[in-house]
Amino acid sequence: MNDPKFDLLVIGSGPAGQKGAIAAAKLGRRVAVIDRQEMIGGVSLHTGTIPSKTLREAILYLSGFRQRTFYGKDYRLKERVSVADLGFRVQAVLQRELQVVRAQLSRNGITTIHGAARFIDPHTLEVETTAGPIILASDYVLIACGTRAALDPAIPFDGKRIFNADQLESAADLPRRMIVVGAGVIGLEYASMLSALDIEVTIIDQRSTMLDFVDQEIINALRYHMQRQGTIFRLGEKVVSVQKDDREWVTAVLASGKQVHADCLLYAVGRQPNTDLLNLEAAGLSVDGRGRLAVNAHFQTTVPHIYAAGDVIGFPSLAASSMEQGRLAGSHMFGGNGKHIAENLPYGIYTIPEISMIGKTEQELTAAKIPYETGIAKYEELAKAQMLGDETGLLKILFDPASLKVLGVHVMGDRAAEIIHIGQAVIALRGTIEYFRDTVFNYPTMAEAYKVAALDGLNKL
Amino acid sequence: MNDPKFDLLVIGSGPAGQKGAIAAAKLGRRVAVIDRQEMIGGVSLHTGTIPSKTLREAILYLSGFRQRTFYGKDYRLKERVSVADLGFRVQAVLQRELQVVRAQLSRNGITTIHGAARFIDPHTLEVETTAGPIILASDYVLIACGTRAALDPAIPFDGKRIFNADQLESAADLPRRMIVVGAGVIGLEYASMLSALDIEVTIIDQRSTMLDFVDQEIINALRYHMQRQGTIFRLGEKVVSVQKDDREWVTAVLASGKQVHADCLLYAVGRQPNTDLLNLEAAGLSVDGRGRLAVNAHFQTTVPHIYAAGDVIGFPSLAASSMEQGRLAGSHMFGGNGKHIAENLPYGIYTIPEISMIGKTEQELTAAKIPYETGIAKYEELAKAQMLGDETGLLKILFDPASLKVLGVHVMGDRAAEIIHIGQAVIALRGTIEYFRDTVFNYPTMAEAYKVAALDGLNKL
Repeated sequence: MNDPKFDLLVIGSGPAGQKGAIAAAKLGRRVAVIDRQEMIGGVSLHTGTIPSKTLREAILYLSGFRQRTFYGKDYRLKERVSVADLGFRVQAVLQRELQVVRAQLSRNGITTIHGAARFIDPHTLEVETTAGPIILASDYVLIACGTRAALDPAIPFDGKRIFNADQLESAADLPRRMIVVGAGVIGLEYASMLSALDIEVTIIDQRSTMLDFVDQEIINALRYHMQRQGTIFRLGEKVVSVQKDDREWVTAVLASGKQVHADCLLYAVGRQPNTDLLNLEAAGLSVDGRGRLAVNAHFQTTVPHIYAAGDVIGFPSLAASSMEQGRLAGSHMFGGNGKHIAENLPYGIYTIPEISMIGKTEQELTAAKIPYETGIAKYEELAKAQMLGDETGLLKILFDPASLKVLGVHVMGDRAAEIIHIGQAVIALRGTIEYFRDTVFNYPTMAEAYKVAALDGLNKL
Repeated sequence: MNDPKFDLLVIGSGPAGQKGAIAAAKLGRRVAVIDRQEMIGGVSLHTGTIPSKTLREAILYLSGFRQRTFYGKDYRLKERVSVADLGFRVQAVLQRELQVVRAQLSRNGITTIHGAARFIDPHTLEVETTAGPIILASDYVLIACGTRAALDPAIPFDGKRIFNADQLESAADLPRRMIVVGAGVIGLEYASMLSALDIEVTIIDQRSTMLDFVDQEIINALRYHMQRQGTIFRLGEKVVSVQKDDREWVTAVLASGKQVHADCLLYAVGRQPNTDLLNLEAAGLSVDGRGRLAVNAHFQTTVPHIYAAGDVIGFPSLAASSMEQGRLAGSHMFGGNGKHIAENLPYGIYTIPEISMIGKTEQELTAAKIPYETGIAKYEELAKAQMLGDETGLLKILFDPASLKVLGVHVMGDRAAEIIHIGQAVIALRGTIEYFRDTVFNYPTMAEAYKVAALDGLNKL
């Protein structure tokens, strides 16, 4: 490749990079995606969304978790689930999804270049490939370089007993006891999965509350169910040091003087953008104190032909929103009709039970002095939930008691992340809660919860 | 009870009867529901929707059906699933759901009267209870008496080897080979469940096509997958007689001269309304040639204070629509604000794979000369489908290429009956296919198929 000229160079092949490249390619542009060979698909594919959500489905099946409703709480499909059992499932899906990513790129005529990229000047990148460095020039650049787990120097990571989330695949055995530091989305997702495998989990976080953007009734319920499952919460407690002793124990020492012992520890606090590897100064770019790039509503950085999308620009750092950001960036560059990103972003949190939400929470509405009424459906009243063995879920609709406009929907339970999109459509298309009352839902489904909740809510008026 | 006077008497406690009674009770009326003690909840609860859909979930789990994607097509969770394994699950859900029905009726102050009802005059019913007959009077009556399996005199039903759908619970063993007569919804649902248990199924129907109201591409795919699973289709073949021989064989003799042998036979053709038991003449009512009652848009019969809802009025005879009919009837009687039944009714067919649809089919649009374009998502491209092991599903959006209005959505695959409601909301609230392109969906979910299909469809323009 001798100084080829591209319309767009994309740094990173995760969800944002893929969709940005495809959007530009569909508009007829010459596009290359640059990523290290072993990282095609990004963190999402290799150590993030795909492996963790595959692991979750495998654990739900292999543990027989939902079947315990029928066969008793001691039911286990497989008495001893092994790392090999789980790794097999993860690899099967990961390899298949890798094919999907490669096929999508190649079907759209996108060049894939394996290596690490750095800026030479605002329009030129040098890529360190196995065959040596190559120089690429381009009209536009999309930075979708993603993040890596932050390495706190106080934590003696070894990838064997003390892990960050990117190292978990190297675990050799399932522990009996585990410490999870960080009660954010990643920490809670792993904690609830591990707990379903009968691992005793202690979650430690220095904040005294968890997931403040989620409805508090849902968070309380999540905490209740995780505690019933055996998880111990140490919130408002700071980890001051982590020690390994020679008896194979890992000990977290807390500021309060407590010591928590376990076989291993997952450190799930903070992720650091890979912007430090890109020689951004050569492009005229600088990052904020946490290594992130600032962008405008079109995902342009301060250098207008350089865009950024995905985890590198910060919140919400979810695969779904990163894809949309990438697509909009790739479309905006070349005059496609990408609209601004949807305001009503759903959140899906793959704890056990699963959580999903759209719109406002009760605490947000209260703070904003917006009156609201609630309609609630308990999963235990749904025939489908009984069939699937989920007796603990709930769906809550928040609505304006005057206009009946739907203000938010909050769901905890099986299929929450699927059925939230029904509420999302009604909010986006300005329906009222009466829509749910007047609509016929398939029976039996979890979606029926909307109708039950709407009738409950309207009966309160 | 000495000639008590009610505002509403409801004949039948199935989905239509329950919701009709509750709607009237919520408006402050005095309501009684009449049904035989062993039939509280109706056919839906005892031999219809609830047991069959519970059976399906139990079979999907116990057979390890979806896990075969990971562990190979010979994988079975349990080598020999027994009738007891399945019956246990069905009873657990059925008893729980029975409690839910009873609690809902009692919470709303509705009187439940056990016995068989018949009209004395248009405002008076006699109920044959175990304590003798009682007479009840009422301003309004809702007939939600449901149906029973039709008994074709040519078929020697014995409830042991030759069943109708209401008799299946009495089966003692799982057969190795089974004949299913009738390729309607009930026949296909049972056939695909039995097939997942490695039972060799032959489906016979005198019509040469199946489920004509469903999109033909979906039906073709269903048939393909059922055939791959080992099911034999004999369509356009009429059963002229069914014989049992002394070697424990059941034989169906077809008009074409073929003989089909099996261990047992399920006759899933036709259901007959229970109107013949109600002495309708005393109320001034008559039925059509198939025993059904005709109603107007408010579910009033020709005698305006007598309403009818549910299977007794015919198509679509689905639990979900019956509930809505009952609710609207109970609301209309007493001036509640029940709107007319939603025009866009979803259909959920719980075959394996599951099918669901909303709006128009390709064949309907073609017949009406309405131009359309299609957008398709294959489940194999969805990360969530890979995680769940469903590689065969698809979602198809039909839309107007000029206005971009969504005309129909057709889904085959896991969670089809849940995610169809997203398309239903967009159609009802007059969104276009661009809604799906511009919306962020949780990742990974099956719902993401909408976005993939929308991008596919819009790229064709």
